[in-house]
Amino acid sequence: MSATASQIIKCKAAVAWEAGKPLKIEEIEVAPPQAGEVRLKILFTSLCHSDVYFWEAKGQTPLFPRILGHEAGGIVESVGEGVAHLKPGDHALPVFTGECGECPHCKSVESNMCDLLRVNTDRGVMIGDGKSRFSKNGQPIFHFLGTSTFSEYTVVHAGCVAKIDPAAPLDKVCVLSCGVCTGFGATINVAKPKPGSSVAVFGLGAVGLAAAEGARISGASRIIGVDLVSSRFELAKKFGVNEFVNPKDHDKPVQQVIAEMTNGGVDHAVECSGSIQAMISAFECVHDGWGEAVLVGVPNKDDAFKTHPMNFLTERTLKGTIYGNYKPRSDLPSMVHKYMKGELDVDKFITHSVPFSEINKAFDLMLKGESIRCIIRMQD
Amino acid sequence: MSATASQIIKCKAAVAWEAGKPLKIEEIEVAPPQAGEVRLKILFTSLCHSDVYFWEAKGQTPLFPRILGHEAGGIVESVGEGVAHLKPGDHALPVFTGECGECPHCKSVESNMCDLLRVNTDRGVMIGDGKSRFSKNGQPIFHFLGTSTFSEYTVVHAGCVAKIDPAAPLDKVCVLSCGVCTGFGATINVAKPKPGSSVAVFGLGAVGLAAAEGARISGASRIIGVDLVSSRFELAKKFGVNEFVNPKDHDKPVQQVIAEMTNGGVDHAVECSGSIQAMISAFECVHDGWGEAVLVGVPNKDDAFKTHPMNFLTERTLKGTIYGNYKPRSDLPSMVHKYMKGELDVDKFITHSVPFSEINKAFDLMLKGESIRCIIRMQD
Repeated sequence: MSATASQIIKCKAAVAWEAGKPLKIEEIEVAPPQAGEVRLKILFTSLCHSDVYFWEAKGQTPLFPRILGHEAGGIVESVGEGVAHLKPGDHALPVFTGECGECPHCKSVESNMCDLLRVNTDRGVMIGDGKSRFSKNGQPIFHFLGTSTFSEYTVVHAGCVAKIDPAAPLDKVCVLSCGVCTGFGATINVAKPKPGSSVAVFGLGAVGLAAAEGARISGASRIIGVDLVSSRFELAKKFGVNEFVNPKDHDKPVQQVIAEMTNGGVDHAVECSGSIQAMISAFECVHDGWGEAVLVGVPNKDDAFKTHPMNFLTERTLKGTIYGNYKPRSDLPSMVHKYMKGELDVDKFITHSVPFSEINKAFDLMLKGESIRCIIRMQD
Repeated sequence: MSATASQIIKCKAAVAWEAGKPLKIEEIEVAPPQAGEVRLKILFTSLCHSDVYFWEAKGQTPLFPRILGHEAGGIVESVGEGVAHLKPGDHALPVFTGECGECPHCKSVESNMCDLLRVNTDRGVMIGDGKSRFSKNGQPIFHFLGTSTFSEYTVVHAGCVAKIDPAAPLDKVCVLSCGVCTGFGATINVAKPKPGSSVAVFGLGAVGLAAAEGARISGASRIIGVDLVSSRFELAKKFGVNEFVNPKDHDKPVQQVIAEMTNGGVDHAVECSGSIQAMISAFECVHDGWGEAVLVGVPNKDDAFKTHPMNFLTERTLKGTIYGNYKPRSDLPSMVHKYMKGELDVDKFITHSVPFSEINKAFDLMLKGESIRCIIRMQD
């Protein structure tokens, strides 16, 4: 039992008061965890494109003030009633999607879309009582993705917290709680390319690079990166990308360019940009007879996926995945061990690091396209 | 060596001279098979909806005069140069799609879309020399789907001919050469439902009934038939369909009706009608997390498949298949044996039978929706 258990904790958090305005480090109050919840001390968090997307609040209902952040590593400070799989002192990764363990999805080997705890970008409160655990001078501050890791302490549903090996370096494995697993799992768990196969990866941000890394580890021989920014190819080589196409360099549709490069199409395509045009191209660039495309990038609300149905009839497959089909509590501990055994290199995703006080610098780096992952050190 | 080998054979064929006009039984001339071809004596053929579709020639480039027909069983009369796997006297099923055995598709375990011999509805001549083997008084008559089985003798590419057990009754197993395998394979080879799962089948013609039969044999517990004609439910019960939805009976979209019936969606959907709206509904009625839809019915040239991409992101899969993913030469012999061992009942698909002279009656029965399969007896 920690000394702070059952107490309100005063600590620092980076609060987004308004869309697009720099976060402000504030002293806030964090209420104790209720039944089924966990209070975590966050040691390291990193910035993911989704944080920026919801901070900009373009095309969504704005929800402010809010504490963003969802890729992180920390230590359990205290647990609410009925939490059996975590205790104070445990090292843990919070995840934006959860695993209740009881619903049909959790019981299915195929799905990780927990009925209770699946990703919900609109909710700004805890599921249990519909209230926030964060406040400043009595004013509630909204949660984000059930994680809100841009705070020294946060409260998370226990089903969204994976207990991991305490020997794992949290400043590294924190990136497994979103982007790296999302891309890596899309290839390893969903596309499953065979050695010698060809894989096109659309969008060479962190998720796309992780998808490419999955293809590299699977032994794919041709890994074709597709991005509107040609300078990304150089860095992408470290992740196995060995050919590159910039759609802007061609007059014909990129799916046709790729089909011509590959004698009819790639074996697999993984779409990580979220652009609807890229989704259609990713599907249409796979080979007839056996080609398969996997959608990972999150589309806009009004997008429509449109293709001629003969593209399916000619034996192409299209599927999608959330968080690389990993079940957070069940699968993250072994992903962490993969890292510790050297089977999965996450270090190369981490290009920058800043102290918590300079969190807005992490936003600048991402907006300029300079960083893949920037770690935010909460205790510096 | 038969007495007729290398000779032109004069025989009867049902010629479609014009779109939508009754076929006319004519005496025609059938040239000997060239290199890589086989001349078959057709004993039984049956009428499939595609024959009617191309006979009506609505929405396609009309190609007349033409000899239609592609579901059939017969005996090899003679073979052209270089044909090793067939000899005169062999019992055989011609198929509208082929297997050259050499191309990447034939070598892939996943695809049956042979590069050389895949289905081609526009071609009216032999692949080898671009000419027809049929003529009347010197006027060439076009082929159809490479099979043209509405003739006492026909010439087919050897890669489109499966050699089968001579003990199999050709008046029954002839239906395996198109519709039954197309629907049955879509379920057995592509959807692969587990025992206890739920399957929605869109379109309860022969193909849809075969898809349902595949679901029944797989042990699916809920088999939901979807058709605009409610009277089809009664017959469909024989093929395992145990629930029925007529979209016309509901104000809301059929995908929503099915989702409400099944606590979120079916495990599998198989679309056999070819209607674009049914394709979209079939995809959208599968459960998130694990649901999978398979497209079988052939769409119109101008159709567009359109859905919100989040329907994929939430872990649904969409794929398509041609001829149930069966490779004709490799897989048909064992399908015939399945029938002979009682593991696959094709008799219940056969509702009618007419002598060759009454072939137009088979068209009437199909147009009125009275038949599933009508066998045409070529020697009566």
